[in-house]
Amino acid sequence: MEESLQNRIAVVLVRARNPLNIGAVARAMSNFGFADLRVVNDYDVPFQDARSAIDAAPVLNTARQFGSVAEAVADCTLVYGTTALGERRLLHPVDMLRDAQTHVRDAVTTGGRAAVLFGSEKTGLSADEMSHCHRLLTIPMNTSGVSMNLGQAAAVCLYELIRESATPQRPLPPEAMPANAEEIARMEAVLGEVLEESGYAHRYPANMREVTHRRMVRRMTLDRGDVDAWIGVLRQVLWKLRKE
Amino acid sequence: MEESLQNRIAVVLVRARNPLNIGAVARAMSNFGFADLRVVNDYDVPFQDARSAIDAAPVLNTARQFGSVAEAVADCTLVYGTTALGERRLLHPVDMLRDAQTHVRDAVTTGGRAAVLFGSEKTGLSADEMSHCHRLLTIPMNTSGVSMNLGQAAAVCLYELIRESATPQRPLPPEAMPANAEEIARMEAVLGEVLEESGYAHRYPANMREVTHRRMVRRMTLDRGDVDAWIGVLRQVLWKLRKE
Repeated sequence: MEESLQNRIAVVLVRARNPLNIGAVARAMSNFGFADLRVVNDYDVPFQDARSAIDAAPVLNTARQFGSVAEAVADCTLVYGTTALGERRLLHPVDMLRDAQTHVRDAVTTGGRAAVLFGSEKTGLSADEMSHCHRLLTIPMNTSGVSMNLGQAAAVCLYELIRESATPQRPLPPEAMPANAEEIARMEAVLGEVLEESGYAHRYPANMREVTHRRMVRRMTLDRGDVDAWIGVLRQVLWKLRKE
Repeated sequence: MEESLQNRIAVVLVRARNPLNIGAVARAMSNFGFADLRVVNDYDVPFQDARSAIDAAPVLNTARQFGSVAEAVADCTLVYGTTALGERRLLHPVDMLRDAQTHVRDAVTTGGRAAVLFGSEKTGLSADEMSHCHRLLTIPMNTSGVSMNLGQAAAVCLYELIRESATPQRPLPPEAMPANAEEIARMEAVLGEVLEESGYAHRYPANMREVTHRRMVRRMTLDRGDVDAWIGVLRQVLWKLRKE
């Protein structure tokens, strides 16, 4: 079987400080089928803390620690850095996330291996760290809003990377079969009887144009089960009206 | 000015337990320009705790609390529930997130108002809560993975809703202008001199086919600045070689 797209994409966390964030990134990777987590940190406390967290996914157990960005991306043919497009002047080409997705997909489907780098929560990637990247990507955001949380940013990026090829985790329930014209006509007939029997037709003759009811019933976009249910309700009403 | 798409979409949290998650949802809403947060909770501790959090965004300050799902979605013309497609039998039509996005966009661009409901962290939406929904949506996930975090799920859904119309928060830096054939030819000429002067041409005559170098240099996909930089480097090397 062909190696999955996800197995050819590494997530690289550079100087992440908060173990909860490292755990959240691992969780998003697990959600979307990614397994290759790489951590670049001067000191290993956050990584060790994340590993000892309760819901430490297998992703965290197989994650690898590197001493530098260069080592972390050594086997990658396309390296993307993430940026919030702050005030800093960027010397890299920058893609919107949805366009970066195309580049990454192209790279890995032609035999390459890609990495997506996330910088520290506070300062993002440094110019030196960015210099190891081929391109940068940015998640479109509301400028006036607050900065994005690392775990949420990773979830959004990974979702975009699998979005095109995604299939539901279980088969979706089949859509109900819409009622056909004959079935709807049966319901209209019973409705007509109710309008007569209840005195509505007598009291509001102006509302009794057949085309009005025909359109009204069609706007209900009924499925077959709905038609049967409504006919049941209307027949019961008729029975009660006639009994009295 | 036309009311933005985001202002016509409400996020409804039903029985969210963890204040951190409520805060994370508010943060994602702020990131993607959404403002209408509605909370349905039997008791208001998580909501009050979330409000008092440090980075409580304006979204939390204007969020509204409701006693029931019915009241929370009363003004909405399209109500989506979110589901992880568990074992439970679903009686609603279910859309993949990217398809739900189309329905929501259609609803709000034709004057409607949409709501996206998220259930409690542990159990999701109950059958009763789902019955207030027109349709359900699911984020495609890896079945064998862990369940998705509420804040991350909300971030992914909101990203999808703005994905199509999104513009970058600041103008992207212009791509560098690729070098033209004449500029590349200038560089090739200096490279040729270096190959001669250094003795490479003499030592590896088999590697000296002009077409080989022409292709090699073109694969470098140089921009104009790169060409100038490389010519500078090669000229310095030539000067040093000739001096000795």
